[in-house]
Amino acid sequence: MTAMTFDISPVADATLRDALTSKINNLTKPLGSLGRLESLALQIGLIQRSLSPVLSRPVNILFAADHGIIAEGVSVSPKEVTWQQLGHFARGGAGINFLCNQHGFRLTLVDAGVDYDIPAGHGIIDMKMGRGTANFLHGPAMTMEQWEECLSRGAAVVDMEADSGSNIVSFGEMGSGNTSPSSMWMHIITGLPLDRCIGAGAGLDRPGISHKLDVLSRALAAYGGSDSVVDRLRWFGGFEMAMAVGGMLRAAQRRMVVIVDGFIMTACMAAAAIINPLVLDYAVFGHCGDESGHRLMLDHLGASPLLHLSLRLGEGSGAVCAYPIIQSAVRMINEMDSFADTDVTKYF
Amino acid sequence: MTAMTFDISPVADATLRDALTSKINNLTKPLGSLGRLESLALQIGLIQRSLSPVLSRPVNILFAADHGIIAEGVSVSPKEVTWQQLGHFARGGAGINFLCNQHGFRLTLVDAGVDYDIPAGHGIIDMKMGRGTANFLHGPAMTMEQWEECLSRGAAVVDMEADSGSNIVSFGEMGSGNTSPSSMWMHIITGLPLDRCIGAGAGLDRPGISHKLDVLSRALAAYGGSDSVVDRLRWFGGFEMAMAVGGMLRAAQRRMVVIVDGFIMTACMAAAAIINPLVLDYAVFGHCGDESGHRLMLDHLGASPLLHLSLRLGEGSGAVCAYPIIQSAVRMINEMDSFADTDVTKYF
Repeated sequence: MTAMTFDISPVADATLRDALTSKINNLTKPLGSLGRLESLALQIGLIQRSLSPVLSRPVNILFAADHGIIAEGVSVSPKEVTWQQLGHFARGGAGINFLCNQHGFRLTLVDAGVDYDIPAGHGIIDMKMGRGTANFLHGPAMTMEQWEECLSRGAAVVDMEADSGSNIVSFGEMGSGNTSPSSMWMHIITGLPLDRCIGAGAGLDRPGISHKLDVLSRALAAYGGSDSVVDRLRWFGGFEMAMAVGGMLRAAQRRMVVIVDGFIMTACMAAAAIINPLVLDYAVFGHCGDESGHRLMLDHLGASPLLHLSLRLGEGSGAVCAYPIIQSAVRMINEMDSFADTDVTKYF
Repeated sequence: MTAMTFDISPVADATLRDALTSKINNLTKPLGSLGRLESLALQIGLIQRSLSPVLSRPVNILFAADHGIIAEGVSVSPKEVTWQQLGHFARGGAGINFLCNQHGFRLTLVDAGVDYDIPAGHGIIDMKMGRGTANFLHGPAMTMEQWEECLSRGAAVVDMEADSGSNIVSFGEMGSGNTSPSSMWMHIITGLPLDRCIGAGAGLDRPGISHKLDVLSRALAAYGGSDSVVDRLRWFGGFEMAMAVGGMLRAAQRRMVVIVDGFIMTACMAAAAIINPLVLDYAVFGHCGDESGHRLMLDHLGASPLLHLSLRLGEGSGAVCAYPIIQSAVRMINEMDSFADTDVTKYF
């Protein structure tokens, strides 16, 4: 089979960059005094190739799936929580629902591979790759064909949203046990020792974290694939994670702003950057949480997240929470007067 | 004269705290996984004495005034920028305008002591204490009578907003040169050496900062008032700052949530806490900026600001930017299902 590729354009454009910088520097404020709003406005202007960027139809795409590795006792949340929460998201009333309602996000729910027969009629998109991945302690979590199909299905969901008019997208996940594959990805991508890539997930205690490290160390030692990074990502991956990777890459290809959520989605963005590093030009990192290793992975990517609110919910919550900051950046460049428009003395 | 006092109730209430904590802990999420949203919801519930707090009619009160110390060349922005920007706020098109529009804030503009005859008809509240303070290098910036009158006028503006239904207020300022009195207040309150309390303001270079330190050191050495902290605050203060202090204290007295902006407003909250430390129970710190010393002053107050976006605009911008996070906290406690409402397994 041929590996799926994503043709992403770099956002660099010296002329446009100069024009955006000049516009921002001439707004009625001390030079640089709107800090991150200014760098965000520049990035989004470059992404949209516009001096007057707009954000339209924000969407949070939430991929849910189960994980074979959960059989090894690496998670405090039992497997049934995955489908229960997916149903809960569909009915409203979960964490991600109030955040999407608050910020005008559409919430798109995708069954990427939940170990449950999700009933029809709840608006959940069926992209099921199977009833959870295989247990990667004993072999690959998925085949290379499944990996490629996940990338393709994730991209297809993004295409639907882009075709409906979305130009900004965040990704969320639900999958009991999915900090384990995320830690494996972080280790594979950053080269940091596994113990620095592992945290408490939804609430493991210290012995639980030790056990998780033991299980993941044994899985790593038993790896039977090739030397390729992508081969190792698929071996230790998750269906929802692989779909998010494909979704992020397609979103960048379609020049959408991609808001990155917490530990798991940061691992997915890091994996996407292995496939095509230009994806990072389109990424806005929403939140740095408390999961051990998240800060290290962000540093590896050179990322400065917008928020630090100690969230560790997943679901896209940290990304959606960051949205008003991005909106502020766009409002700034569109709504503020320049010194040329006013009688305020330019004093710098 | 009798010093103005503010009778503020402590928010501590063990029974209500337990009830709020229980409600938050039973929402459908891993325990503690919504981080700062959870601590904010608890604080606001305590302030409003309610398990279902609401935010109503948010308002940013912006006090503007001039400063005699600017004659010593301590600011990169000339004095005329104060009135020019105040007019600009009234017309819309400044930084604070797009933020207030975005987040549904009313913007209340107050002439606390601008050195300009502000024309009528622009909706600016006339609380003018004079055409700027006196130059505190050569004597007190204001008399004790003026200080007390500023507290009273700031409180009166807050009363108007509270009477109109606001229960959450941020304070902003405009006043060329006002990082100098703020640095003096920080030094007086924290006891830190003056050079750690001084920064670039709107954009001083290194020699400019040295000059500012020299001027402020000489002013400190020439102090001719009493040993009382409040006496020193008024000696080196500003009209807009003193009104903000009175406004913050009255807002706490009326059980409003007070969102604290950047360096100057943090100095005002620190000053308010000298008069009545219970004001801090009502404070939510919106933003930690890059002005040197802001972090140190926040640490002195034990404050954890919500945002770190390198803003240094003033005007209330960092406080208003933080509002959606506070809204999220309130939506969380009101809109999320509890485990009792759903069929999701409680797994902790």
